[in-house]
Amino acid sequence: MSETRVLASYLVSSRIEDIPSDVRHEARRSVLNWMGCAVGGSREPAVDTALRALAPYSGKPTAALIARSERLDPLHASLINGISGHVYEYDDTTPKNYIHPTPPLASALFAYAAASRVSGVDFVHAFLMGFEAEERIGDAVYPAHYEAGWHITATAGVFGAAAAIGKLIGLSIQEMIWAIGLASTQASGLREMFGSMAKSFHAGMAARNGYASAVLAKTGFTAGEHALESPRGFAAVQASKYDLSKITTGLGVDFQIRYNTYKPYPCGIVVQPTIDGAIQIHREHHPHAETIRAVRVRVNPLVLDLCNKRNLTRGLESKYSIYHSAAVGLVRGKAGLREFSDEAIRDPLIKRVHECVIATGDASITEDQSHIEVELLNGQKVSCFVEQSLGNIHKPLSDNQLEEKFRDQAVLNLPATQVDDIIQLCWRIDELDDVGELVRATLPK
Amino acid sequence: MSETRVLASYLVSSRIEDIPSDVRHEARRSVLNWMGCAVGGSREPAVDTALRALAPYSGKPTAALIARSERLDPLHASLINGISGHVYEYDDTTPKNYIHPTPPLASALFAYAAASRVSGVDFVHAFLMGFEAEERIGDAVYPAHYEAGWHITATAGVFGAAAAIGKLIGLSIQEMIWAIGLASTQASGLREMFGSMAKSFHAGMAARNGYASAVLAKTGFTAGEHALESPRGFAAVQASKYDLSKITTGLGVDFQIRYNTYKPYPCGIVVQPTIDGAIQIHREHHPHAETIRAVRVRVNPLVLDLCNKRNLTRGLESKYSIYHSAAVGLVRGKAGLREFSDEAIRDPLIKRVHECVIATGDASITEDQSHIEVELLNGQKVSCFVEQSLGNIHKPLSDNQLEEKFRDQAVLNLPATQVDDIIQLCWRIDELDDVGELVRATLPK
Repeated sequence: MSETRVLASYLVSSRIEDIPSDVRHEARRSVLNWMGCAVGGSREPAVDTALRALAPYSGKPTAALIARSERLDPLHASLINGISGHVYEYDDTTPKNYIHPTPPLASALFAYAAASRVSGVDFVHAFLMGFEAEERIGDAVYPAHYEAGWHITATAGVFGAAAAIGKLIGLSIQEMIWAIGLASTQASGLREMFGSMAKSFHAGMAARNGYASAVLAKTGFTAGEHALESPRGFAAVQASKYDLSKITTGLGVDFQIRYNTYKPYPCGIVVQPTIDGAIQIHREHHPHAETIRAVRVRVNPLVLDLCNKRNLTRGLESKYSIYHSAAVGLVRGKAGLREFSDEAIRDPLIKRVHECVIATGDASITEDQSHIEVELLNGQKVSCFVEQSLGNIHKPLSDNQLEEKFRDQAVLNLPATQVDDIIQLCWRIDELDDVGELVRATLPK
Repeated sequence: MSETRVLASYLVSSRIEDIPSDVRHEARRSVLNWMGCAVGGSREPAVDTALRALAPYSGKPTAALIARSERLDPLHASLINGISGHVYEYDDTTPKNYIHPTPPLASALFAYAAASRVSGVDFVHAFLMGFEAEERIGDAVYPAHYEAGWHITATAGVFGAAAAIGKLIGLSIQEMIWAIGLASTQASGLREMFGSMAKSFHAGMAARNGYASAVLAKTGFTAGEHALESPRGFAAVQASKYDLSKITTGLGVDFQIRYNTYKPYPCGIVVQPTIDGAIQIHREHHPHAETIRAVRVRVNPLVLDLCNKRNLTRGLESKYSIYHSAAVGLVRGKAGLREFSDEAIRDPLIKRVHECVIATGDASITEDQSHIEVELLNGQKVSCFVEQSLGNIHKPLSDNQLEEKFRDQAVLNLPATQVDDIIQLCWRIDELDDVGELVRATLPK
């Protein structure tokens, strides 16, 4: 049997009873993490602009959007949810292939659930099927595909959204094969777009196109039967090297969501261990900014290649500054969205500490590590070595830390009590009779 | 200046006064050719199925579709028009890069014109700008891109639709750069889909996504500024070899529509010279089928590789039979859609002649040539050598032949008098105050 057919058969025949409970819990964590990003990002200019441009083309407004008062048809809602959830670049990540897996899936599924009744159990099951499709197809073409310049979150994500919605609407195996085919022929998204609004558009377009693929297949719209493995199929066309066995090996046993991670800070991944260390020193020694003489940071040389920004004029730039990142950790003991804002780079205390930071490259330190030493004006020194950064696969964010991350973003747009209600609904998503309840809980009151 | 910016600047600054009259006439011919395909293909199952699947998601029904009573929003109308116009595979072609150029452009532009008033002059100008963008970007990546497995009509077409709609809605240079960027990141479509409904979907998706790119850019939705030429841009990611100078050389002088051709028969391109010869013998000698003893055809050996189908069970197969193709030309003196139908393969006269055909490969004959000799039962022989097939770039279909092709398709769905009215409107498109008039002329009464 071809890989396309094996995958389609698995997606169609999987039963929720076959999903282990740790996998279901990780699905809740992924959904929670995404929902915080989407609530937080829902008022960003990229979202407003896309809505202004495309709302005039929307169909019947049956689907509420995450954390916005507008309503759209479910395909357009998928697109807008996708932009909201990806715009902060605060997503989940599977480090083995750099996919941000939840944005395309959750964007489509919550748009569906906003318009049609779907139980939490069915929702989580469909989410996990989408996760399998997206990660496995991504694995098959990674790294050649990613290195060539494809934004793999978009190109793999469209398969995930097709599989997730396809599972929800009960596609047959033949229809699932067509849905995979229709997704394959819509797989696009260039890394060249990074730094523009088009980047967050990618998550939305993957969600919308995957959703439409499932709907078309359900109606009998045909596609090639060997979309993944054929010599002119997705893998061969979009990757100079690929391994199709990744699509099928361990299906139903080796659940891909177990490889998911959640970024603790909304900034460049390589400065994260330094932030961990700075926060630890803040908590243990709470040195006052005014008393600091020098902050000596030793990091992998790559960090200085990527995050060496010294003179900051916009908050956005501070996400790629090892100096600023160390400073916010030491001064505020946290590094949330506000710590990378225009306000934060003008904070006199942060500025003072920023100027004390000296960063040195050291090849004996991995990208996941950092050594920090703080010297006070009185000559006292405190130091900290971070062996593994928080949020990596070996040191995952706890459920409480995920909630903290959620609040940090969501309170920008919604009252704290409402935010807490949404968090509780995310943890209880399996128990909901109607996931629309969760979407409605995000709406501005 | 980067290629993206040079192209965007040209598209924005071009004035209709700068377009030579032969170029404008070729635009009319291209539009006429496409309109015949779209009217003819508008009731095919792929169109019906896509409509059934997607109409529930359509926005305000402001746009009439070509030759159908349903109305959709202009983005969905672009998609459906695209399927109608491409489903017969009877399109125009630029042989230098295998692009079918008009489907993505016309599908989007007529959807726009159905919903918003646009003059014929502006329409034709926008069409020609889309044509330049699509062909030049396609040229830059051809042949590596096509050979890798990309359906270049879709991948180049999305740029064409973005440029055409972008011209119509008056994008600034900056906005046109974003529109090109948004198109680049949506460029997709695999040749693997050939033979399924997804193939004609490609033309529609290119039209819709290009249209949306222009609308988003107009609203301020940003994209990468170097979508075409960057190391992670469209050309580098989607082609192992490319030549960006094709995008800019001769802009405004070397109009790409001068390379356009129109297929005279809805069948494999390599059997077309044989049909030409058979029709010529039919016209000059009108041999009755019952009197034929043998038909000896000498063709390039490739023809027998590709079109050697002897036992036909479905009309579709006959499009790839050198035997059937010779027979219909000799028996009916034409080779339109009806000559490749289930009815035609059962026609006793065609079957009889089909069985008389002997085809031989001859490397001294080009793919564009054919030699036919007909021997009658009385021993008489007549023969014909076709040096260049009708419809190629050196022997283009005449305006009358384009009308004949149009009628052949359109009368399947509309009365002959209405068909004639549409043809006249296509020839007069530059003079129309409102191109919506032409769309309305195609509607079932």
